[in-house]
Amino acid sequence: MPQTQQFASDNYAGICPEALRAMEDANRGSAQAYGDDPWTVRAADAFRATFETDCELFFVFNGTAANSLALAALCQSYESIIAADIAHVETDECGAPEFFSNGAKILVGRTENGKLTPETIRGFARGRTDIHFPRPRAVTITQPTETGQVYSLEEIRAVAATCRELGLKLHMDGARFANAVESLGCTPADMTWRSGVDVLSFGGTKNGMAIGEAVIFFNRSLAEGFDYRCKQAGQLASKMRFLSAPWAVMFETGAWRANAAHANACARHFADQVADLPGVEVQFPVEANAVFLKLPPETTAALRARGWLFYTFIGDSARFMFAWDSERARIDALAADLRAITRTPA
Amino acid sequence: MPQTQQFASDNYAGICPEALRAMEDANRGSAQAYGDDPWTVRAADAFRATFETDCELFFVFNGTAANSLALAALCQSYESIIAADIAHVETDECGAPEFFSNGAKILVGRTENGKLTPETIRGFARGRTDIHFPRPRAVTITQPTETGQVYSLEEIRAVAATCRELGLKLHMDGARFANAVESLGCTPADMTWRSGVDVLSFGGTKNGMAIGEAVIFFNRSLAEGFDYRCKQAGQLASKMRFLSAPWAVMFETGAWRANAAHANACARHFADQVADLPGVEVQFPVEANAVFLKLPPETTAALRARGWLFYTFIGDSARFMFAWDSERARIDALAADLRAITRTPA
Amino acid sequence: MPQTQQFASDNYAGICPEALRAMEDANRGSAQAYGDDPWTVRAADAFRATFETDCELFFVFNGTAANSLALAALCQSYESIIAADIAHVETDECGAPEFFSNGAKILVGRTENGKLTPETIRGFARGRTDIHFPRPRAVTITQPTETGQVYSLEEIRAVAATCRELGLKLHMDGARFANAVESLGCTPADMTWRSGVDVLSFGGTKNGMAIGEAVIFFNRSLAEGFDYRCKQAGQLASKMRFLSAPWAVMFETGAWRANAAHANACARHFADQVADLPGVEVQFPVEANAVFLKLPPETTAALRARGWLFYTFIGDSARFMFAWDSERARIDALAADLRAITRTPA
Amino acid sequence: MPQTQQFASDNYAGICPEALRAMEDANRGSAQAYGDDPWTVRAADAFRATFETDCELFFVFNGTAANSLALAALCQSYESIIAADIAHVETDECGAPEFFSNGAKILVGRTENGKLTPETIRGFARGRTDIHFPRPRAVTITQPTETGQVYSLEEIRAVAATCRELGLKLHMDGARFANAVESLGCTPADMTWRSGVDVLSFGGTKNGMAIGEAVIFFNRSLAEGFDYRCKQAGQLASKMRFLSAPWAVMFETGAWRANAAHANACARHFADQVADLPGVEVQFPVEANAVFLKLPPETTAALRARGWLFYTFIGDSARFMFAWDSERARIDALAADLRAITRTPA
Repeated sequence: MPQTQQFASDNYAGICPEALRAMEDANRGSAQAYGDDPWTVRAADAFRATFETDCELFFVFNGTAANSLALAALCQSYESIIAADIAHVETDECGAPEFFSNGAKILVGRTENGKLTPETIRGFARGRTDIHFPRPRAVTITQPTETGQVYSLEEIRAVAATCRELGLKLHMDGARFANAVESLGCTPADMTWRSGVDVLSFGGTKNGMAIGEAVIFFNRSLAEGFDYRCKQAGQLASKMRFLSAPWAVMFETGAWRANAAHANACARHFADQVADLPGVEVQFPVEANAVFLKLPPETTAALRARGWLFYTFIGDSARFMFAWDSERARIDALAADLRAITRTPA
Repeated sequence: MPQTQQFASDNYAGICPEALRAMEDANRGSAQAYGDDPWTVRAADAFRATFETDCELFFVFNGTAANSLALAALCQSYESIIAADIAHVETDECGAPEFFSNGAKILVGRTENGKLTPETIRGFARGRTDIHFPRPRAVTITQPTETGQVYSLEEIRAVAATCRELGLKLHMDGARFANAVESLGCTPADMTWRSGVDVLSFGGTKNGMAIGEAVIFFNRSLAEGFDYRCKQAGQLASKMRFLSAPWAVMFETGAWRANAAHANACARHFADQVADLPGVEVQFPVEANAVFLKLPPETTAALRARGWLFYTFIGDSARFMFAWDSERARIDALAADLRAITRTPA
Repeated sequence: MPQTQQFASDNYAGICPEALRAMEDANRGSAQAYGDDPWTVRAADAFRATFETDCELFFVFNGTAANSLALAALCQSYESIIAADIAHVETDECGAPEFFSNGAKILVGRTENGKLTPETIRGFARGRTDIHFPRPRAVTITQPTETGQVYSLEEIRAVAATCRELGLKLHMDGARFANAVESLGCTPADMTWRSGVDVLSFGGTKNGMAIGEAVIFFNRSLAEGFDYRCKQAGQLASKMRFLSAPWAVMFETGAWRANAAHANACARHFADQVADLPGVEVQFPVEANAVFLKLPPETTAALRARGWLFYTFIGDSARFMFAWDSERARIDALAADLRAITRTPA
Repeated sequence: MPQTQQFASDNYAGICPEALRAMEDANRGSAQAYGDDPWTVRAADAFRATFETDCELFFVFNGTAANSLALAALCQSYESIIAADIAHVETDECGAPEFFSNGAKILVGRTENGKLTPETIRGFARGRTDIHFPRPRAVTITQPTETGQVYSLEEIRAVAATCRELGLKLHMDGARFANAVESLGCTPADMTWRSGVDVLSFGGTKNGMAIGEAVIFFNRSLAEGFDYRCKQAGQLASKMRFLSAPWAVMFETGAWRANAAHANACARHFADQVADLPGVEVQFPVEANAVFLKLPPETTAALRARGWLFYTFIGDSARFMFAWDSERARIDALAADLRAITRTPA
């Protein structure tokens, strides 16, 4: 696949230099398994320094597991989880949250742009309170959302306050956490525990790593037994250093933020170039690394005919996703092609 | 940790050069996610060529998942799995087979050296046939066993014939599959499907990879839906190429066998040097990459005092495990230390 | 609770005389446990005669279990079940289908009156076919629906044909199965296997029994292992005769149909009396034993003030449910009260 | 089956008069469902009076569910439960504890007569403490044991003290709880919470009811959410009064103790008559309602040839189980037959 023709997904990208170097550096001699190694300590220290708090954290293999294990830790099988209608845990995990939790139900809130509101959460929590319906116990928000929107700190705090009021735990799916931090220009602490988030899934793969996500418990009591939970669920790496070393180096070098900043800027740059084209509509505010365009079907087809890869979904729009390695020149070429297509009489 | 002082586990070892190079090579440009990439095709081709059959195969993150998902595919929650008493799935997976299968029970057969026999299997299958006991549906054998024993082809065939006779499916836990192939000097096909194995977990991590195991269905009908099963269970890698590329290169270069041959030879070399020392007893025949020594407690303590790392378990013996990167000089140093200790009057 | 003031639920009713007599008759001497008794044979024979086919059947304790176990038998944890938005399995089982199936997802179809259509089913089956979404494997329809509608034989056949075309299994939730049979005036066979139903949950409790539902597999191959599934899930009664005897007698005497006919007639009678009252709207066609009335809030309150028990739900309407023991005189009294209230100027 | 020829199981017996009468009495008019009825309140009051404490209690359908739900409430899926080797939860529940708990492992202690000791419990709790093994969280003891032994109060207290010391919760499987109370001549409170039991499964079926077991939490905090757990697991009866009324009447009349006293006396009476017969060995002390006889195979066969029903298991002994309805005359006939057979030269 010609690399430069793809804006389909940020997990089509490779490993960023810092993460790869970390794996190479970690590959010196032997190291104790299952996380009892210096790299894992270093990565944990980096996380705690970055988040400015003594959180509990766990390294797992992918986002499916990070989100599902975190949610399973927050509720019993007979309880429920409030999520947005387009939340990944609802639409793209093949029932993983239900599997890991042994049957917890996801209550799907109709949303604009994938953002849950206090009203929606309150509606679920106060709606059914009889024993025939699984009582809500957790809320999960995606930051940024699947459409590239970012909750403001005020919005997170409002959701968190509602959760506290109703006895619900708050999980943040941060598959693209770094992009949201860059977008808001805030600190990781501000966007999480200082705003009331209990547990965070922090995505490494889309941020530039080969494999790996972290589950971070700001509310440490919720982490009790989570190491056993990971082990039983097939999410404890034996050669842990190769999962943890990239985290350490990406935090120490700042690559995690630089990668995200680059991807966000690429999205912004692309949107700026195509927003005014005839027949093209930017469907959602561009706040992270995705651009959704509403295009005429023939335009979509013509773009594909020129070899461009992208997804169409969520209201049939074309999604262009930018990664740590997206190249300006190729973005300009994509924009030029789109310009040429839209200006050609059908 | 000084690398050379450790013979604790083959997952303390790093990534072998071929596997690391494969990851680096795979890190060129973009690639489709979830296995729709050329490296994964190449790895699958390499597996099929190596096993001389058109098997179905799946790449997962670790051995816990490989074994547990394979067993879950072979039985329902109300059925049972026959395993040896020291089988890893029984003793070291924190209930993962029970979790992935939603409650299937492991029936534990008393064994010598971790090898199940047709008699043991038949005893379980014919023992309880009432509805109050989970009916046996699968058998899992570990090759080599946790004590480093290798089933002969005749033994595997006898187990497989018993399984067919009783309507049981046969799974092989090959966390150290390559070591067994080298030990028997046979082909992978001979040791598996030609002898009646239905499903194999093939271990990459202990063979020299960073992360990754393969689940191989020789009986393709058993693989139906396994891709969904992996996805739901958090075992589908998005950047799959970094899991699959090492497999491709290790097969293409023969590194998978060379690594195992080296580790086996190291074990043999060590055992040869210490077998005759006073007070030292080699507890199990050395057929793969492990050496179990029965040592006086003060000898064990003295070895540890000199900085050597090893496990003590299974009948309190000291386990020395050799990896693809074990160095002859350090083995000789270990043997020398053991010699010195045992010859010193207490 | 004054019996006659309640039209809240048909499970507020007691045991009908035939079912109670069966329990008393079965209480003579000893009998083998777990279904190896003559009463259970007799009940099974009665079912097979009634359904005119050699079906497989199982007696379980309640409807939650009947539906959830049946659905678990039809799909894997990584698959999904298509159901109507107001289906009991979705709205009132506290996640039981997800629990018993270990995570299968319910895909909720927007419906009118709780009836799934071929179009809705086809939409789900053809909508998502990627690995990140649980593939549909079963369809469940409720007959009669939660709003008291009855699928016609043509509608069932159309749904069943769609299921066959798409490789889906068809389950019927017959919590009030008898009421639907009476409503259509057809045979049980016509309404089930002759129309393409694979598995039926047949409700005994609402039909007049103390405890008990039956799961009937017309497609016998789907029943493989279901006895073990029931046992493991805590649904195998030891003194089975007390579950099975009532079934035998209710079928042999025809009480199962008489009870349903009575309840349906009560609903019809009530609806006829109140349909034309000012401010009263019969919200759904009265086809079984439920009447849903859209009432002004003050009317609802006034009825309750007079001691009448009923539920308000599904679009805030008042649900009046009639049972095998509903008395005409009390229905008339209820109608009279409603008439008096609605004719009183507010 | 001729009633009087059976001593196979106490669940072959019917419903005792008090329990049947309660069901008949409860069958007057309507009652609210799911436990919001006066009979359920009355039964709960009776339990609390009997146990002299304000316990939380739940009525479920059978012993499989009672034990499995209770254990699921005590541990997470990645934890383990210590049980005796012949415990019903290990040998006769078809994996139900594993299913309800989503994978918790049962650690099987070798026992004499099915009684766990503090040493065995301590051995498990201190044995494996690494993350690869599910950590013990609960202990379950059966009172009386499957061989008819009864833990003394001292033994229960010693087990409970060990549990507290080790952070384990203590569950008592009281499928034949009444028989143990009668055997010890103590109060229910003494045998449970005053001795340190956290949760009790109290068996109604073997005590003379048609269907039903109670789960009693003396440690009320452990009951949090248990109502939802029961509902989701298919163990919430809609017409609850028919489960609860028999409990109320059996406690109020004392039938629960009288039934047990009778059964125990029958066992004692039978054992007394046959203990000294040539070739007959009473295998376990007769402390409840079971008598295990070690018999020559030809004796077993001859007894069966005369029409007597009994089980052979646990060391191939013949188990004679006595129920609330066992008749002295038939016991004497059985003893006479056994006497005749053993005195006849082979």
